Amino acid sequence: MSIDDLLRYARVNRGRHLDELRQFVAIPSVSAQPDHAGAVKRCATWLAQHLRKIGLTNARVVATRGHPIVYASLRGAGARPCVLIYGHYDVQPAEPLANWQSPPFVPTVRGDKLYGRGVSDDKGQLFAFVIAIEAWLRERGRLPVDVVCLFEGEEEIGSPHLLEFVSRSRSDLRSDAAVMADAIMASPARPALVHALRGALYLELTVHGPRLDLHSGLFGGVVLNPLQALCELLASLHDAHGRVAIPGFYDRVRRFTHAERRILLRDAPSDALIAHDAGIARPWGEEGFSLYERIAVRPALTINGVQGGYAGAGSKGVIPASSGAKLSFRLVPDQDPQEVARMLRRHLVERMPHAVHGTLRTISAARPAQMDPRHPVLQAASDACRLAFGVRPALLRGGGTIPALHCFQTVLGLQTALLGFAPTDAGMHAPDETLHLPTYDKAVAATIGFFDAYARQSCQERKQIA
Amino acid sequence: MSIDDLLRYARVNRGRHLDELRQFVAIPSVSAQPDHAGAVKRCATWLAQHLRKIGLTNARVVATRGHPIVYASLRGAGARPCVLIYGHYDVQPAEPLANWQSPPFVPTVRGDKLYGRGVSDDKGQLFAFVIAIEAWLRERGRLPVDVVCLFEGEEEIGSPHLLEFVSRSRSDLRSDAAVMADAIMASPARPALVHALRGALYLELTVHGPRLDLHSGLFGGVVLNPLQALCELLASLHDAHGRVAIPGFYDRVRRFTHAERRILLRDAPSDALIAHDAGIARPWGEEGFSLYERIAVRPALTINGVQGGYAGAGSKGVIPASSGAKLSFRLVPDQDPQEVARMLRRHLVERMPHAVHGTLRTISAARPAQMDPRHPVLQAASDACRLAFGVRPALLRGGGTIPALHCFQTVLGLQTALLGFAPTDAGMHAPDETLHLPTYDKAVAATIGFFDAYARQSCQERKQIA
Repeated sequence: MSIDDLLRYARVNRGRHLDELRQFVAIPSVSAQPDHAGAVKRCATWLAQHLRKIGLTNARVVATRGHPIVYASLRGAGARPCVLIYGHYDVQPAEPLANWQSPPFVPTVRGDKLYGRGVSDDKGQLFAFVIAIEAWLRERGRLPVDVVCLFEGEEEIGSPHLLEFVSRSRSDLRSDAAVMADAIMASPARPALVHALRGALYLELTVHGPRLDLHSGLFGGVVLNPLQALCELLASLHDAHGRVAIPGFYDRVRRFTHAERRILLRDAPSDALIAHDAGIARPWGEEGFSLYERIAVRPALTINGVQGGYAGAGSKGVIPASSGAKLSFRLVPDQDPQEVARMLRRHLVERMPHAVHGTLRTISAARPAQMDPRHPVLQAASDACRLAFGVRPALLRGGGTIPALHCFQTVLGLQTALLGFAPTDAGMHAPDETLHLPTYDKAVAATIGFFDAYARQSCQERKQIA
Repeated sequence: MSIDDLLRYARVNRGRHLDELRQFVAIPSVSAQPDHAGAVKRCATWLAQHLRKIGLTNARVVATRGHPIVYASLRGAGARPCVLIYGHYDVQPAEPLANWQSPPFVPTVRGDKLYGRGVSDDKGQLFAFVIAIEAWLRERGRLPVDVVCLFEGEEEIGSPHLLEFVSRSRSDLRSDAAVMADAIMASPARPALVHALRGALYLELTVHGPRLDLHSGLFGGVVLNPLQALCELLASLHDAHGRVAIPGFYDRVRRFTHAERRILLRDAPSDALIAHDAGIARPWGEEGFSLYERIAVRPALTINGVQGGYAGAGSKGVIPASSGAKLSFRLVPDQDPQEVARMLRRHLVERMPHAVHGTLRTISAARPAQMDPRHPVLQAASDACRLAFGVRPALLRGGGTIPALHCFQTVLGLQTALLGFAPTDAGMHAPDETLHLPTYDKAVAATIGFFDAYARQSCQERKQIA
């Protein structure tokens, strides 16, 4: 059966949908920053209200011990396959604000792009599913499969309360598979279907020195500057070859066979493309691996932030009383975040100078995740992309981390199709984040087609089993 | 001749003087921060107005290419000795603001202390001279010596425009010696007379990486993080023994003979006192030197600030596009700031990884300074302290840097008596900066006595020469 009527509906209502997305993006739902908690809540309320408006009448905001979750479901009477649609309505901090051409929460169209924090990650990609559901319900009065929506407000801070919610909501969430769009494309014309993700371990290291900030003229030379100690500790985490220098760190990293590497690299972006997307002239990292492999199947450690001493204009002769760093590991099979945290602690304790003391705090942790590319939900996602983009999506392993994916796998036993509709230059997590509108039209078409494709793939699977 | 009448005048007017000092401190004259430029100007205007009020009728605000200078003079008809009084009305940034018990620019008395940014460094110490001049003019109608006042608004940023002003104002500034109070005491009951200061070289190092901030999941492992490169560069600046690891850095550092070290250490504070003042359990630094020597005659390198990546609450998975550090050297005879800057640049260039690039900028530079303790102005300062505090001031070398001192020596040929009236726990450059009021009363008495003492010392010197 053709879905042309649905695609036409999306085209005709394109302007209104863009306005709605702009309303959604305008709410500064920065989950990491406590002073934005009200906006996060407002954003959840807006989203639930919108879902009710398009026909998901039971949509509601569910409180957690952190930011709320937006939940909705639409189940038919018969025994149809059910897909859990996941997305996150929270966004990354917009800092540094000075680097935005238009304010991050005043979504602005320039050329064929919409600019604003979260336009791609993940409000835009999430909203493609919302538009698809609306199209089905308005044009056909029903969806071809049952759906459950779970839209989270804490993805960008590591989903600290998702596991608890999913565990206690097993019956509301019961489904056959999950789908989400929260990744980048393989190239400007080719979406990605991500079947594996790295895990993450995010930590905060603080080094404490003198009781108070000191004058560096009066005390420079007799006090171990905590900022100096911190830099020395951070510098000890990598060796001269770009490898993580923490003893034991690579012990559990899975080695791929030659044959496995060939499969792995089939759809992989080239070194040149990755370097171009990163905006770097000279790549860096572990020798003996392509850039794609370094992102996909090799772990990494990033110092995400350092804060200490005086950072304002001009100069200040200060020895800060303390200083801190945020750092994160990206982990691959079969690394364990808890074990890596223990290795890091041991490494730091051994190197901590006596004249200062340090504290290490884990902010979030998620294991690596892996899906089966032959699962109906991944097949359906692939079919839908082919229909909308005219090309099979690249089957990739992703370098990022989506704790939800692992949580759905372990708690609900679900495989997830993770789609990437954001162009590689969308600036997710950076200033001037963009949504490329012509690509977005295709993403909306793909999500519309996905429900149909999943109904067919599920049906085929049942026939095969029978 | 007794100065009891003058001391009584100070006692009687103590409350009003404290109110005036609070007005002075309440103006947030933070020279380092461009958004405070208006306040710096307001502060200069207030000070010039106050000087006119107490009788320095020619007091005026002199524009420079940076923050203004307040100038005043009072010269008698005859050939009297003239002393140049220097101080600075600008203050250090007040950050981190959260660590203040009362707001930094709402000067507040608690117990026997006045709290506020600049109460000691240097508004309080500067104002002691202003009170002394007022006492002489009101009680006696004249000062016993000629005076020139030069109160600067850029000391805390390295006095970038002082040299230019002094060079073009030689005739207005002609004097026989200079005096300033901008140092800490040797112990709670004993002021300091500082006869040498370390030089300073303040620089800013920036490391640039990818064109934009990147998502550390999507690119972690293939991009050299500029923040990591920065930490590694900063870590390379010290060796494991706390010495500066830049080749050639110690080549020009003067070696003191055993006899010189004995003299040096005569009035020196103990290791225990310095560690106590610093608020540290374990001292640090170059082996083979007392803590006092490490501050007084050994150079030091301090990382004053690092800024890069995300420093807000929670987490952000970012690889910053660039990151920067502020660092400063304290230099001793016979080191040359320009030469040290060249050595640092060479060291960094050799270690800069190819995948990033760095920029190094000198913010300010000042040579080390050295005075003759037998000069009349230092003798007069010593006499005045003995009178007011009942004890000879400790003759010390200071670890800080006051570019004015070097400038007066090289351009005007003047020796400077640098007095320290701020208790060691005054928190100069730190939150909760204090002025200990009972000590301040003695500092005011010492400045009143100084003019008299300098008149006598100069007279003796002339007799000796004659």
